[in-house]
Amino acid sequence: MSGAKGRDPGTFQLGEWLHGEGPNSDIAVCTRVRFARNVRGFRFSTLMDGEEAKELVAYIDTELTRADFLGEEYPDTPENRTLRALELGSLEDLDRRLLVERHLISRELAGLERARSVAVNPTESVAIMVNEEDHLRAQTFRSGFRLEDAYRRAELLDEALLRRLPLAFSEEFGFLTACPTNTGTGLRVSVMLHLPGLVWADEIEKATSTAQKIHLAVRGLYGEGSRALGDFYQVSNQVTLGRTEEQLLEDVHKAVERLIAWEREARAALLRGEAQVRTEDRVFRALGTLERARTLTSEEALTFLSAVRLGVQQGLIEGIGIPQLNRALLLSQPAHLQRLCMEKLSPVERDQRRAALIRDLLRPKP
Amino acid sequence: MSGAKGRDPGTFQLGEWLHGEGPNSDIAVCTRVRFARNVRGFRFSTLMDGEEAKELVAYIDTELTRADFLGEEYPDTPENRTLRALELGSLEDLDRRLLVERHLISRELAGLERARSVAVNPTESVAIMVNEEDHLRAQTFRSGFRLEDAYRRAELLDEALLRRLPLAFSEEFGFLTACPTNTGTGLRVSVMLHLPGLVWADEIEKATSTAQKIHLAVRGLYGEGSRALGDFYQVSNQVTLGRTEEQLLEDVHKAVERLIAWEREARAALLRGEAQVRTEDRVFRALGTLERARTLTSEEALTFLSAVRLGVQQGLIEGIGIPQLNRALLLSQPAHLQRLCMEKLSPVERDQRRAALIRDLLRPKP
Repeated sequence: MSGAKGRDPGTFQLGEWLHGEGPNSDIAVCTRVRFARNVRGFRFSTLMDGEEAKELVAYIDTELTRADFLGEEYPDTPENRTLRALELGSLEDLDRRLLVERHLISRELAGLERARSVAVNPTESVAIMVNEEDHLRAQTFRSGFRLEDAYRRAELLDEALLRRLPLAFSEEFGFLTACPTNTGTGLRVSVMLHLPGLVWADEIEKATSTAQKIHLAVRGLYGEGSRALGDFYQVSNQVTLGRTEEQLLEDVHKAVERLIAWEREARAALLRGEAQVRTEDRVFRALGTLERARTLTSEEALTFLSAVRLGVQQGLIEGIGIPQLNRALLLSQPAHLQRLCMEKLSPVERDQRRAALIRDLLRPKP
Repeated sequence: MSGAKGRDPGTFQLGEWLHGEGPNSDIAVCTRVRFARNVRGFRFSTLMDGEEAKELVAYIDTELTRADFLGEEYPDTPENRTLRALELGSLEDLDRRLLVERHLISRELAGLERARSVAVNPTESVAIMVNEEDHLRAQTFRSGFRLEDAYRRAELLDEALLRRLPLAFSEEFGFLTACPTNTGTGLRVSVMLHLPGLVWADEIEKATSTAQKIHLAVRGLYGEGSRALGDFYQVSNQVTLGRTEEQLLEDVHKAVERLIAWEREARAALLRGEAQVRTEDRVFRALGTLERARTLTSEEALTFLSAVRLGVQQGLIEGIGIPQLNRALLLSQPAHLQRLCMEKLSPVERDQRRAALIRDLLRPKP
C-alpha cells in the first residue's frame, strides 16, 4: 500500500455481508436473521455472577465448536459448517472493535465485562454471540436480498443448537428471552439497504415512515441522527411476540420489496432529463475527491463511497467494481484501518491513512 | 475535445499576459503599463458626436496599422512590431467579449455605442484602445514581474505614437486626459498577482491594505466583492498627477516586491508542519474535482484552478504544467468557451462544456 506501511489490504477477507452477490444486491447489501435463545439450568446472562458466566461460556463454546456443528443438512461446505470461538476477554480492544465493524458482534457485547464469546464460521455467514443479553444470539448472513434462504439457514442453525444444548422453551410464550420484546419466536429479520436514490431525491423520510407504519424499524447502519451515513439503512421487525415467524418474514419481505422498487424509481428519476447532469456531477465529484484527497474523515469516506457505489451500479463509472468499494467501506473503518497499518493511529493520522488506502484501492490496477 | 464539438482548444493562442514566463512568474502573472493620450484637433471622446468619432477612429487606425509601426528600436520581431486594428462596431458581441476576456479591451470600450477600435500586435503584448475615455489608451503587457521592461516598451510605444500623431500636451499639466486623475504622466502601472497563499492564510486583507496605504489600488481580477475569484489580484497606482514616472514605478515595484515575498512566506507556511496535509488535501481535492466534475460554474473553475496552480508551483502536483492551467483559465471564460464550441450556449450548457473542457485539458496526454 502506498504511503502507509502495514498489511496488504487484500489479506483482509470480506465477510458474507459484503460479498455483493445475491438478488437485488445493487440495493440490498445483506440479509440477516437473528434469534435469541437461552440455555436451561443457567440464570439469564444479565443476572449471573462472574463464575457462572465463565462456566456458561466454556460450556457453550465447547458445544458450538464441535466438528461439523451445523450438520450435513446445512447448505455449505464442510469447513464452513464448523465454527471457531473467540473469547472476547482474551482479545485486544482493537480486535473486539474489529469484530463489531465486521457485524459479527454487537457494540454491547464488545463492551461487557463478563465472560463472553463469539462463534463464527470461516466465511462469516454464521455468527453466534454468547452471553450477550441472552445466552445465545445466533445470526445467519446472506449477501443480497435472500430472506427465505437466510431464514432456512437460521432454522437449521436452531436445530443444530437444539441437538447440542438444552434450550429454554415455554409452551405458552415460546422461547424465553431476557428481554420480553424478543420472547416468542425470538426472531429478528433485517435487510441492509443502500438507498442513495431515496436520500438524494429527498424521499427517504417518506419511505422509512411507510415501513414504520407496519411496525418495522428503519435505522441508519452508520452514524446517528436522521441521516444515515453512507445512505445505508437497516430494515427489521420490531416485535416478535404474538406474530408467527411466517408473518414476520412476510412483513419484512413486502416492505423491503417496496423499498427496493421505490429506490429503483428514485435512481431512474435521478438519471432522467435535467437531473442527470446534476447526479453525474455529484457521483464523479465524489470519485474525484476519493481519488485525490489527502485526508478523509470516516463520514466523508462513507458519503463519497455511497455516491461512487451508486455511480458504479447505475453504469456511470467504469473500471471500478463493487468489491473494491466494499473493501474500501470495510477497511476504512477505524479498527480495520489500524489493524491494516499495524499500529495505533491518532484520529488525524487515521484520516490520512484512510485517504491513502482509498486512493490505493480505487487506482486502476495494471 | 471529448464530449463537445467545436474547435481544438490548441488553436486558441495564449496572449502575452498568460505566457507564464518572466521573473517571479510563479506569483506575478503579468505586468502591464498603460497610458492615456489624446490627439490635438479632436474633442475628447466623451464629448464628440458620431461623425467625429468615426473620423477619429479611421484616422488613428490608419496610422497605427502602418508597417513596422513600433519601429526597429522596439525589442520584438518585425511581425510583432506591426499592429492590426479591429473596428469593434463590426464585430459580433461575442467577439467583443472575447477581447475583454483577453484583457485587450476594457468592458467599457466593448459596451460603447460610438465608433471605437483596438489595435493589437500578433502576440498581444501591445494593445491600443481607440476612442475609449481618451482617444488612445495604449498598453504594453509582459508576462511575469517585468516593470522596467514593460515601461521601456511603453516609452517606445509612446514615441511611435508621437512620430505619427499630434498628441495633446500642456507644459503645465503634461499629457492631457479626459479624466483629471490620469492627467500628467497619464501612466498606469499594474501587476497581476496570484496570491492563494495570502488568501488561504487569511492574510490577504492585511497585505492589500498595506499596499493601499501608499495609494496603490488592489483589485480582484475576477469577480466582485472582497474575495477575488481565483485569488488573482491586480496592484496598480491610483493617481498620476504630481508624481514623476520614476516615483510611480518605484512605488509599484516596492509594493509588488513586498507582496511577492509575503506570498512566498505564506506558501511556505502552508506547507510546513501540521498545515501541510490540509494544504495538500485542499490542492488535490481541487484537482480531483476538476478531473471529474460534469458541470462547473466559472466561479468554481477559478477557485479550483487557483488551488491546482498553487499545487503545481509548489511542486505538489506533477504532470500538469502552468500552460495547461493558463489555457483552462482563458478558455473556460464564457465568450472563449462559446467561440471554442462554435455555438451559443445557455448558462447550464456552458457549465457542462466548461467541465468537459477542463477535464480534457488536465488529462495526461500520451
